[in-house]
Amino acid sequence: MSNSVKKFCSWPKVFLFGDSITQFSFSKAGCWGSLISDYLQRKCDVISRGFSGYNTRWCNIILPSVLDAAIAKETVAMTVFLGANDSTEPDLNPRQHVPLEEYKQNLKDIINFAMSQGISREKIILISPPAFHADSWAVICKQRGKVLSKNNENTEIYAQACCQVADEMGTKKVDLYSEMMKTEDFTVLLDDGLHLSEKGSQLLFDKLQPIIEKLTAHLPAAWFPFHDQVDLEHLEKSLLSF
Amino acid sequence: MSNSVKKFCSWPKVFLFGDSITQFSFSKAGCWGSLISDYLQRKCDVISRGFSGYNTRWCNIILPSVLDAAIAKETVAMTVFLGANDSTEPDLNPRQHVPLEEYKQNLKDIINFAMSQGISREKIILISPPAFHADSWAVICKQRGKVLSKNNENTEIYAQACCQVADEMGTKKVDLYSEMMKTEDFTVLLDDGLHLSEKGSQLLFDKLQPIIEKLTAHLPAAWFPFHDQVDLEHLEKSLLSF
Repeated sequence: MSNSVKKFCSWPKVFLFGDSITQFSFSKAGCWGSLISDYLQRKCDVISRGFSGYNTRWCNIILPSVLDAAIAKETVAMTVFLGANDSTEPDLNPRQHVPLEEYKQNLKDIINFAMSQGISREKIILISPPAFHADSWAVICKQRGKVLSKNNENTEIYAQACCQVADEMGTKKVDLYSEMMKTEDFTVLLDDGLHLSEKGSQLLFDKLQPIIEKLTAHLPAAWFPFHDQVDLEHLEKSLLSF
Repeated sequence: MSNSVKKFCSWPKVFLFGDSITQFSFSKAGCWGSLISDYLQRKCDVISRGFSGYNTRWCNIILPSVLDAAIAKETVAMTVFLGANDSTEPDLNPRQHVPLEEYKQNLKDIINFAMSQGISREKIILISPPAFHADSWAVICKQRGKVLSKNNENTEIYAQACCQVADEMGTKKVDLYSEMMKTEDFTVLLDDGLHLSEKGSQLLFDKLQPIIEKLTAHLPAAWFPFHDQVDLEHLEKSLLSF
């Protein structure tokens, strides 16, 4: 092997951090994680650290247990997608609710921790909570014997706060709430009133894609040569000089 | 924090190694990677190392550049899914074709290398090349100005050889070719005659799922507590004592 032959290729990571909408990001409906994985095939691994039902307070506590300097070093993009649980009503859902000012501070703490591990602010993408459709989610709540503890007005306030934090901290952002509201009927972007449908996942991906494209522009088109570029006369050298 | 609080949680890996059918495993049609990711949410990361157009000869050369002892240590299951390119006809596609005996030896070398890095034979799942539909793939070949260099008879021979290797080496196996042939019309399991359709991906997942279930049975149901089990009175301890 020539000296130009590299020994090991550790693929860069896209790190998705959030609640159920991140946890379900490889499901049939909520497939925005799959869409990113497919888009970045042969380039990056997409790592989902989504925790259903968690709010920023809880996620802030567990982040150091799932993100360290070693992972940060390999991370080319990180999404922070929280607020759907924080924005529940305090009297109806004191368990998951997080007050607005604490929500903002928790997001800042999450960003600061990621930066302390080595992920620069330009690589962090805050995603605002999606628009919420109470009538649909009320059906699920009834099935589970729970009260409906969320409304779209509060969700909008938390979405705006999320975007403010992104602007203050100098991170990237996707204002998913506003993007959904720009469409003719945002309810088709939701599966059950709360989680994204396939169309909603596609919308989120469409907004993330240009940001991720820039953040991965320095990477080769693919690790290892495309099959029609493999040089059979110098097989090892050709395959390993990536 | 109590002594029982763990500091960092590195999620186990499912390592998918193969050709285009692995590279496209997060696509809309070829989504068997997404199906595994969704099935193992909160438990494992699914890492795709798929290389479109590659045969066992080329994959054997690059494996040490994508799998080392550190990754092997975290790997709870590894799929090896090769043969679709090896089984092309030697005179029509000498570039990608690999003779049958070499195909078998290359698979053994790949297994032996994975084992040398620490992945035990029980964690390795050989997947035979899928059945092939020449009429459909001929359309793609014509569009690309290439000759059709594959037939289903050869594919079956390589699929049988793949299963023989699995039996000889003591690995797990999914005989995808035979599973497809058991169905009423295997062509609906293919997208373009060569790559899996959504139905084909589902079939592959259905065959992998019981194997992966056993290989991940020792893992907790989820890393970090489910949201309704979080103890608000002892928030940190509850969240971090996973």
